[in-house]
Amino acid sequence: MGKVYFNGKFVSKEEVSISPDDRGFLMADGVYEVLRWYEGFFFDMDSHLKRLKNSLRELRINWNDADNFPVIAAELIKMNKLENQPAMVYLQITRGASNRSHAFPSPEVEPTAYAYSWGFEPDALSRNNGIKVMLKEDIRWSRCNIKSIALLPNTLSFQEAHENGLKECIFVRNGLMTEGTRSNIFFIIDGTLFTHPETNHILSGVTRKNVLRIAQDLGIKIREEAVLENRIRFIQESFLTNTSAEVTPVTDLGGNTLGEGLPGPVTKLISLKFDEEIMALKG
Amino acid sequence: MGKVYFNGKFVSKEEVSISPDDRGFLMADGVYEVLRWYEGFFFDMDSHLKRLKNSLRELRINWNDADNFPVIAAELIKMNKLENQPAMVYLQITRGASNRSHAFPSPEVEPTAYAYSWGFEPDALSRNNGIKVMLKEDIRWSRCNIKSIALLPNTLSFQEAHENGLKECIFVRNGLMTEGTRSNIFFIIDGTLFTHPETNHILSGVTRKNVLRIAQDLGIKIREEAVLENRIRFIQESFLTNTSAEVTPVTDLGGNTLGEGLPGPVTKLISLKFDEEIMALKG
Repeated sequence: MGKVYFNGKFVSKEEVSISPDDRGFLMADGVYEVLRWYEGFFFDMDSHLKRLKNSLRELRINWNDADNFPVIAAELIKMNKLENQPAMVYLQITRGASNRSHAFPSPEVEPTAYAYSWGFEPDALSRNNGIKVMLKEDIRWSRCNIKSIALLPNTLSFQEAHENGLKECIFVRNGLMTEGTRSNIFFIIDGTLFTHPETNHILSGVTRKNVLRIAQDLGIKIREEAVLENRIRFIQESFLTNTSAEVTPVTDLGGNTLGEGLPGPVTKLISLKFDEEIMALKG
Repeated sequence: MGKVYFNGKFVSKEEVSISPDDRGFLMADGVYEVLRWYEGFFFDMDSHLKRLKNSLRELRINWNDADNFPVIAAELIKMNKLENQPAMVYLQITRGASNRSHAFPSPEVEPTAYAYSWGFEPDALSRNNGIKVMLKEDIRWSRCNIKSIALLPNTLSFQEAHENGLKECIFVRNGLMTEGTRSNIFFIIDGTLFTHPETNHILSGVTRKNVLRIAQDLGIKIREEAVLENRIRFIQESFLTNTSAEVTPVTDLGGNTLGEGLPGPVTKLISLKFDEEIMALKG
């Protein structure tokens, strides 16, 4: 068992005990963040930290150690000897433990902070060959811009995709494709890159933001507009973005083969540029 | 510290330790149920048990002890010497502890089962004088018929009401008043009792169901139809129902005084019949 971070201390995982009164356990009253470690650095830590603070602000959870998140994450990598391999860090902050009540605890209680790290093998096959994804009505709440731990709709929907042999479930709200259960989605239609705008219906993905910057640098025309499900036949390419899987081509969207059923040229170009940026940072 | 139920055993609360890998803690992947103890019995245990099983089925959580819920609840009351006072029992079942993943654990793991009881003082003032409630857009997911622990939208909305000195927040979806963060809502318009039908946008309340039965026995005209927020001026009376607060009159709905601003006659009649039924069961 490795070392984890729990309420200000680095301890063995078996020492962590969550109270049954924790509002994370009772009411999903918390937020999380996930970082990818690239054998030497976390990519775009600033954006992750900014998003974490935004999630905490939205829920009005006062976690005083937020600015220490980069240090905590780096320490977890070091303590678990993950420096020289692809790794991830997960952090979760809840409103803390208190008698169950729909109202916030009053007086305020200390938030619960838990973080852990793990080494992982990037899914090269999916990144190279692309994946097939499912489409499903968006059953989530209307504040998807908050990275909250209220992930029940996501897990139920992802499981449905999983049982159908598909790698992700893309949500459709009011006919518009929003995002996946754990990823943002992009579409290429006649050379233009489409993705859902940053509204309350999607999470502001860190990789999403970087991909938009890369696409702009490449001179690709961008439209931050949602695409209607009934326009799938006009889509030539699609890809997902998230912190762990980076840029993953989508070759089949809800049973509709896109283009030749292979990762398309725009997707491959963006993916290559993303990888080059990481390589350059590795030095 | 009293005795609680945890994974098949009755233990002191301080002995309960939730794993940080618990899917209840990480992903709100669980359901709950709340019972009211009336100095000798739980009211309509059958409906609570049926609803618990339905919630578990919807999430595909296999908790083998579901049929023991009545026994567990009664044992908690006894062990904590709550037999002779108003008391509540809370039960929560999660999908169990496993490496964090959007997919369900495979193979399946043992669900986490946690229950506790507490004595309480019914809020006679609210029941007698009525309460003022807030109205707010329904930010919840679209599967509100499942009694899940993904209560973040509920706690955020309730807190907003609480900070405004109001006792509940009633959700409005597509212009229609659905239910509260922890209650169902009824309206009386020209002698007819209205309440939102049992769709995926409300929880099937046990007290809701019993109130409908009582109203029917009283010969009150019932329409299980949602009421538009913009028809508030036509509403003469309103009340909330839930397991702990039973029938609670609403005298002000989003800043609109209803009728004379006092509990109305239909509300009082239904409330009285509900109390009589409880009294009769007490024998």
